[in-house]
Amino acid sequence: MAVKNRSIEIYDTTLRDGCQGEGVSFSVEDKLRIAHRLDQLGVAYIEGGWPGSNPRDVEFFARSRGERWERARLAAFGSTRRPRVSAAADTNLRALIDAGTPVVTLFGKSWDLHARRALEVSLLENLAMIGESVAWLKSQGVEVVYDAEHFFDGFLANPEYALASVRAAEQAGADRIVLCDTNGGTLTRPLVESIRAVRAAVRTPLGIHTHDDSGLGVANALAAVEEGCVHVQGTINGYGERCGNANLCTIIADLELKMGTRALPRGRVAELTEVSRYVSEMANLHHPDRAPFVGRSAFAHKGGIHVSAVLKHPRTYEHVEPETVGNERRVLVSDLSGQSNVIAKARRWGLPLDKNRPETRAILERVKELEHDGYQFEGAEASFEILVKDTLHQLEPFFKLEGFRVIVEKTGADEATRAEATIKVSVAGAFEHTAAEGHGPVNALDNALRKALEKFYPGVGDVRLTDYKVRVLNEKQATAARVRVLVESSDGRRTWGTVGVSDNIIEASWEALVDSLTYKLLKDGVQVQKLLRPAVLKHPAASNEVAPPKRRPARNRRARPSLPATRRTD
Amino acid sequence: MAVKNRSIEIYDTTLRDGCQGEGVSFSVEDKLRIAHRLDQLGVAYIEGGWPGSNPRDVEFFARSRGERWERARLAAFGSTRRPRVSAAADTNLRALIDAGTPVVTLFGKSWDLHARRALEVSLLENLAMIGESVAWLKSQGVEVVYDAEHFFDGFLANPEYALASVRAAEQAGADRIVLCDTNGGTLTRPLVESIRAVRAAVRTPLGIHTHDDSGLGVANALAAVEEGCVHVQGTINGYGERCGNANLCTIIADLELKMGTRALPRGRVAELTEVSRYVSEMANLHHPDRAPFVGRSAFAHKGGIHVSAVLKHPRTYEHVEPETVGNERRVLVSDLSGQSNVIAKARRWGLPLDKNRPETRAILERVKELEHDGYQFEGAEASFEILVKDTLHQLEPFFKLEGFRVIVEKTGADEATRAEATIKVSVAGAFEHTAAEGHGPVNALDNALRKALEKFYPGVGDVRLTDYKVRVLNEKQATAARVRVLVESSDGRRTWGTVGVSDNIIEASWEALVDSLTYKLLKDGVQVQKLLRPAVLKHPAASNEVAPPKRRPARNRRARPSLPATRRTD
Repeated sequence: MAVKNRSIEIYDTTLRDGCQGEGVSFSVEDKLRIAHRLDQLGVAYIEGGWPGSNPRDVEFFARSRGERWERARLAAFGSTRRPRVSAAADTNLRALIDAGTPVVTLFGKSWDLHARRALEVSLLENLAMIGESVAWLKSQGVEVVYDAEHFFDGFLANPEYALASVRAAEQAGADRIVLCDTNGGTLTRPLVESIRAVRAAVRTPLGIHTHDDSGLGVANALAAVEEGCVHVQGTINGYGERCGNANLCTIIADLELKMGTRALPRGRVAELTEVSRYVSEMANLHHPDRAPFVGRSAFAHKGGIHVSAVLKHPRTYEHVEPETVGNERRVLVSDLSGQSNVIAKARRWGLPLDKNRPETRAILERVKELEHDGYQFEGAEASFEILVKDTLHQLEPFFKLEGFRVIVEKTGADEATRAEATIKVSVAGAFEHTAAEGHGPVNALDNALRKALEKFYPGVGDVRLTDYKVRVLNEKQATAARVRVLVESSDGRRTWGTVGVSDNIIEASWEALVDSLTYKLLKDGVQVQKLLRPAVLKHPAASNEVAPPKRRPARNRRARPSLPATRRTD
Repeated sequence: MAVKNRSIEIYDTTLRDGCQGEGVSFSVEDKLRIAHRLDQLGVAYIEGGWPGSNPRDVEFFARSRGERWERARLAAFGSTRRPRVSAAADTNLRALIDAGTPVVTLFGKSWDLHARRALEVSLLENLAMIGESVAWLKSQGVEVVYDAEHFFDGFLANPEYALASVRAAEQAGADRIVLCDTNGGTLTRPLVESIRAVRAAVRTPLGIHTHDDSGLGVANALAAVEEGCVHVQGTINGYGERCGNANLCTIIADLELKMGTRALPRGRVAELTEVSRYVSEMANLHHPDRAPFVGRSAFAHKGGIHVSAVLKHPRTYEHVEPETVGNERRVLVSDLSGQSNVIAKARRWGLPLDKNRPETRAILERVKELEHDGYQFEGAEASFEILVKDTLHQLEPFFKLEGFRVIVEKTGADEATRAEATIKVSVAGAFEHTAAEGHGPVNALDNALRKALEKFYPGVGDVRLTDYKVRVLNEKQATAARVRVLVESSDGRRTWGTVGVSDNIIEASWEALVDSLTYKLLKDGVQVQKLLRPAVLKHPAASNEVAPPKRRPARNRRARPSLPATRRTD
């Protein structure tokens, strides 16, 4: 069947089926943020959760009702009515309507084994459960997507019954019938044959929902589209039960770039890499390096022959241009890539760079070194801006750390663990030495630092840390591993992100905290204090000299490369 | 085409193409060990390396000549002769023969773009390079596998030329012609059409070599087998350039368990999981949890509905039995799961629980409370077992914490951050007070704790932390947020996971560390030390009394619920 120029509906279930993946867990706040990102990407449907199964999903739908959605239609997921209860009296169906979404996705049993063994109902009662549930939901005015769970296994075991189950959904008015390979065990050939039988039996637009247990999640979804399915379900990064759901990042790229179908609004396919990384950050899971199209290694060339050929002519070893999906080429060992990426990034934040200036090369080199050390500037734009300004000599430190000490103490097995930080900073020769407690070493240090600085720069009192993430980089080193800390801060008007990396979590947090306060003062246009009123003098050793603070790199991560002294503003 | 009962040759290139994957690197010793493991598994061919490309591969072949191989035929890999040189005078071809393997795999260009742009030769010269190289190798008495690099891209661009290139190999006597989707960009439908054209043009047995750049590496290999290919190339765990090669673990399982073909000697498919993990250990890479068939999560069930159904009847949510590939079913304990998950897990450790016993309710209540507090027992089975045993009064603590103190200090902006921990523990009235440094507060505490305990329980010296993960739970609390720490430990024989949660990262880590050592001692059958030899006495205050340690809950997270005193073993 010709697929070119056809439109395919993308149905994302990261927030529901994706959460059944081992290690995947989102807060309500995470879910809302991901839903908005998916909406911007332009998927047609977002399945937000199963309101009958847990209170978190009920809260998600309650909060999502107040939100504006650009394009996506939200769906609540749930099962057919219980056996021997009327649809109107079923509390789970009621919960689906109460979720207040324009779409309800209902799953029912297509496999006789499941009806008999899992539900423990007769085959006829199962058909009634499907039909009555769909009909009642339609009577409530929602769009109904019917997920035929285990359709392919059911079709193999008892084709007549499997077809009867989807006919029951069609007759009751389902808007979409989605054929699910729930166990992920179906090979492509029998899957295609089953779809042909369904197309002969029903007229409702068909969808496909596949899993990767046989390594065929993507292949089966694409084959289904070739067989006429117009609706594809999957998850970002393929999160999901067992081996995961079909990976939408791969499917969307294949549909758009290879099959000529339309799956997203024009131009949005270039956001795939960023969306994929965003969701893995939210899940706090390693982004899969080898993921097709969006992985860090997806356009990384290592073999010598590959590298020399790809530099002559990229198409020799690249099936698509990395930029089309928002990814980038990387040449391993002798890294020749990345410059355009850094320039593009800097421009996005209003820092015009171009290839012909020596500063650009210097920035690029620092970024590469830092990325090699585990830094990552996605989600840490404030640190990136500080790095760029520092390299361009457009930044002077607002204070100098004289020292800190954090003590964490437990005085017996059943005693609480106490954390206390002491800190000494100086600003233009004036010292402040103070202390604070906290709910752990980082919180104590954060409290102490802000307490010390507030005296010189009252604005830091407005800063609240709104998010704190820790990622262990080389996990095999266990407790001696490097960690990356991402901090998100807000002053009530702006929100910004900063990053720190170290094998010591306190040091990494410190870097991110210092960047956060530096960025705040920078954006407020606060002047670095240089002159000192005598009243502020505290430290005897400093009281005789009023000198500007010694220059030091804003980030002590690495020495700043020496640069021609252009455009110094200080 | 009927494939049932056909034999398929498995050609493993983990040691050559696999090493072009980012982060994959093997020593000669590793390569020999992997080759032997693959030989035992029963693959038909093992591609050991490219002797022309690096000295390590030359050494591998030199050493492999002295080894005995059960079934596999070793292959050396290399390219066609250079332009304008006779095959007999080409040093790379000579190196292939010098490798001394029974098989040589030669790759040549099928795509006119590559001949012109990468090799920079005429199209005719490229055909001569293929034919003459194959012919010369055959004259040296080896089996020749011809890899038609970029065959599918070449066929799309210039079908006549692509077919001419494989005919040149056939006419020169190649034993196998392998069609390669080198860039991984080919969709299944055009791949199938190309193979049909080749089958009409040549009679040499065909092979397939695919990559995963479009997420179709496995699907394309299986489709090629259905089209008559008898030889499948790939790598263990799908290691390889960019997104990787087709994953042989998945392909072999699909071929054997689903398509009814024979790919390994009878019974060996059950070794797949172990081989997959073995190779990832050798590569020092995380084993991919979600890998089909062999991943840790491949048969892990999390959703409550899945779990209760799978316990009634495994086939409801499992496409094959985990044991057929040497894997195992896992039931995850999470907030999506219910009572049945907890009971199923406890049974696996010989702790028979059922719904009607009061202990079961007590355990469930503790699990729910702990999960509400942020604990997660996925990947922390050891902590769960300790929790269950503790609730059942089957556990006594091995030591008592008297106190610890961790100090993290930075004495100036450019100084390194130092971490030191002091700790005091007691075992049956004997005290040990010691200190250690580390790469951060947790590492220092870990070092100090093991140093203190090793004196009483030498076995703890064998424990190594192999993984350490930190997850911030309520990120909106930022640095005052609760954190969950997951620790993976190993003593060289077993591997186990433990968990801790607190708003203080040190306390959370402490919990996970204590559980880890407790589990080790429990599994070793070590007795809790109760009596003391006078020589061990250290602490003056304790020297007059030799009393058993005061009972305390093994986990001080929460008070243990009071229980009827049943089945106490202590």
